[in-house]
Amino acid sequence: MSASNPALLTLTEVAEAIAAKKLSSREVTQACLDRIAQAQPKLNAFMAIEPESALAAADAADAALAKRGVKGPLHGVPLAHKDMYYETGFVVTCGSKIRRDFVATTTSTALQRLKDAGQVRLGSLQMSEFAYGPTGHNAHYGAVRNPWGLDHITGGSSSGSGSAVAARLSFAALGSDTGGSIRMPAHFCGVTGLKTTVGLVSRAGAMPLSHSLDTVGPLARTAEDCALLTGLMAGADPADPTASHRPVPDYLAATRQSLHGISIGIPKSFYVDDLDPEVARVLDDTKSALTREGARVVEVELPDQRQLSAAAQLVLAVEAAGFHGGWMRERPQDYGPQVLMRLQNALAIPAVTYLEAMRWRGVALAEFVAAVAGVDAVLAPVSPVPAPTIAESDVGNSLNAEAVIQRLTRFTRPINYLGLPSLALPCGFSKAGLPIGLQLIGRPFDEAVLLRIGAGWQRATDFHRQCPEL
Amino acid sequence: MSASNPALLTLTEVAEAIAAKKLSSREVTQACLDRIAQAQPKLNAFMAIEPESALAAADAADAALAKRGVKGPLHGVPLAHKDMYYETGFVVTCGSKIRRDFVATTTSTALQRLKDAGQVRLGSLQMSEFAYGPTGHNAHYGAVRNPWGLDHITGGSSSGSGSAVAARLSFAALGSDTGGSIRMPAHFCGVTGLKTTVGLVSRAGAMPLSHSLDTVGPLARTAEDCALLTGLMAGADPADPTASHRPVPDYLAATRQSLHGISIGIPKSFYVDDLDPEVARVLDDTKSALTREGARVVEVELPDQRQLSAAAQLVLAVEAAGFHGGWMRERPQDYGPQVLMRLQNALAIPAVTYLEAMRWRGVALAEFVAAVAGVDAVLAPVSPVPAPTIAESDVGNSLNAEAVIQRLTRFTRPINYLGLPSLALPCGFSKAGLPIGLQLIGRPFDEAVLLRIGAGWQRATDFHRQCPEL
Repeated sequence: MSASNPALLTLTEVAEAIAAKKLSSREVTQACLDRIAQAQPKLNAFMAIEPESALAAADAADAALAKRGVKGPLHGVPLAHKDMYYETGFVVTCGSKIRRDFVATTTSTALQRLKDAGQVRLGSLQMSEFAYGPTGHNAHYGAVRNPWGLDHITGGSSSGSGSAVAARLSFAALGSDTGGSIRMPAHFCGVTGLKTTVGLVSRAGAMPLSHSLDTVGPLARTAEDCALLTGLMAGADPADPTASHRPVPDYLAATRQSLHGISIGIPKSFYVDDLDPEVARVLDDTKSALTREGARVVEVELPDQRQLSAAAQLVLAVEAAGFHGGWMRERPQDYGPQVLMRLQNALAIPAVTYLEAMRWRGVALAEFVAAVAGVDAVLAPVSPVPAPTIAESDVGNSLNAEAVIQRLTRFTRPINYLGLPSLALPCGFSKAGLPIGLQLIGRPFDEAVLLRIGAGWQRATDFHRQCPEL
Repeated sequence: MSASNPALLTLTEVAEAIAAKKLSSREVTQACLDRIAQAQPKLNAFMAIEPESALAAADAADAALAKRGVKGPLHGVPLAHKDMYYETGFVVTCGSKIRRDFVATTTSTALQRLKDAGQVRLGSLQMSEFAYGPTGHNAHYGAVRNPWGLDHITGGSSSGSGSAVAARLSFAALGSDTGGSIRMPAHFCGVTGLKTTVGLVSRAGAMPLSHSLDTVGPLARTAEDCALLTGLMAGADPADPTASHRPVPDYLAATRQSLHGISIGIPKSFYVDDLDPEVARVLDDTKSALTREGARVVEVELPDQRQLSAAAQLVLAVEAAGFHGGWMRERPQDYGPQVLMRLQNALAIPAVTYLEAMRWRGVALAEFVAAVAGVDAVLAPVSPVPAPTIAESDVGNSLNAEAVIQRLTRFTRPINYLGLPSLALPCGFSKAGLPIGLQLIGRPFDEAVLLRIGAGWQRATDFHRQCPEL
């Protein structure tokens, strides 16, 4: 235990300490609740905080540990997740007014697997309304604030997940990534986030945004923690026929491998264009550092990526508007202005255009995979800028809104369109003290190599260990 | 051998006769070619007739049989198929002007499996342009004619398949059924046709019309012949990820079981509404006959089927227009007027409407399956009328066209929307001597029980044995 406050440990560390009875679930849970009580008024990261039931669950976990040993790798570890993972009997708002009182009658598969592994529920985390928005603003519940700068956005849509993990309020948190919703908050808040390959983790019981783009994944303090959680959640699920039947690799074992023999590609264009100088500097520094750590860093020529972001947004908008059709007709006044505008804009998109965008995905994926065949992962920025302020990115339903959103997400959306895995990692800080992350983009279903590189990177660096002052 | 002309045998009979060396492939092939030469000027059933290569292949089959025994269950059997199954090196017109000279560079999986079983290629069969049309008209190659009445339509889009199998020009033929394209010609031409469950037979190398509705299946003279062909074609295929991995049942064994213990549902509404009196009479007679043969015939209350046909057409039109986008922009003048009109009408359909129609499919299927849980199959007309004349159904791109098409296909399209298997069987004749078929609709992937019922029916009746005069 290097830290005196157990809330400052990583997920893996705290899970081991509880299993070894060096810490009780109660003291860990209490430490988190204390921090949450202190930080919540500033950060607005939680949707619901449940101290009594959390402590009762912690006590039960401690008692069970004494009697029967560990339930699973998360025994007694307190966690909170993005408020879109259904859990029977709990209100799941999805960040919306429309579902303000929605009580789930099912439990999402991903969440159930974490429960089966022994997690203790702390409450639920804020998010962009219906997960549709990359900044972290929310017209109903207010913007979530970045613990590294309270006037700055967290990124979204997993805004509460980014803020809470960065501020050490939860050891990790489920997010979801449809256009960048895990990687954006990871980048802006300085945490590690894994966007999984489409199909790796069951989406059953997770609020749908876009059925062909949605992915479930963790935000955590380290790549090792992401490996632990992903390994627990991945794999076939009868409740989600789109979940892959591939055997799940041993991600934790992958994180113990060195960077030796790894080759990393840096795109020659698109992902390196029009970067904020501080993001460009972090990308350069990271290239050098990775080389020093034994990785081979080479330039790669990618197929033209310029249209992929628009294609991703078209697919996302259509599928979201399809899902929201009923509420849009019956309760338009209950949407925030930006979400409603974006959903309504999608109503006019012709079906043949949608099918064209869908058909192009396979072609674009095959071209991308062929272009990166010589490397283990591609290193790219998550966003061209560090976190903007809440005020400057509060574009609502203005004519400028899509352009601002498009600028922020232009490096994440293409990866959703391609369906690829991508690990966002803390790689530096701006002069103003805001975190800067980069993403490692991988081959389909090769999360293991991304987690291996991420863990090796984090053994050599301490960006992920920096903790914002509360 | 009951028939003196081998072309009049069933597929199963002729295959056994060749395998037993009672008939040579050459004499069977020559008998078919003689019939084709005689009938083609009247019927226009063939797109291409290839006598020299067919006879050469027949001779090779005879030689191989003498040397090495049978290659497979279709050894030396001459067949022709709907001209939309790609075969490397052959022109595959898809019934269109646009593909008049298209030489395939791949062979469709379904066709390859029939080739592997030993079939001899006779040529290729006419079809509606791009399989988009239920009557059998073709603006480029002329209407195919019904051997039971040359002024009457064959039904489409597998028009040549229906005509050629009915006239005993080919022992069987691949068709495809996206909105009724196997069952309509089976009904109008008096042959047996199996629309398979979506996913039973690989669509790789078959011209796409609607990727979520297209099915591959046979038209043949008997249910037993359909069982033989379906068993050869069904099953997983790496080239088509939508093809099911279920084990393929022994369909031929199913055809040998009796009707005893079988229960058949008759819908109380929709499928029995507004029928031509002759179709209604055949339905009544068939109910009585099935009861006499030992089946239990009961009424079933289906969920409301009225919107399913429109939903099916919406999905079909959008997916077809999506596939045809490039040609529609570049070569609109090369489409027939009706096909172009129907494709163009689909361009304005919003993506959210398409997704709504797609999402409703699962709900409608679950309701249908629940409603028919107590029976093995549902008996219904294929179309409310016997074959109309070519003249009266030649509606082109008139304002009346969709209404005429909708009337003919209103009992087939819902089954495509639901993705279910359906076996069309000859069940009677009109006073004018036109065949009247009925369809047996089954549970997903339960083709076996439909083929069992069909074979039992055909042991008890001789409608399928009637042969039109050439």
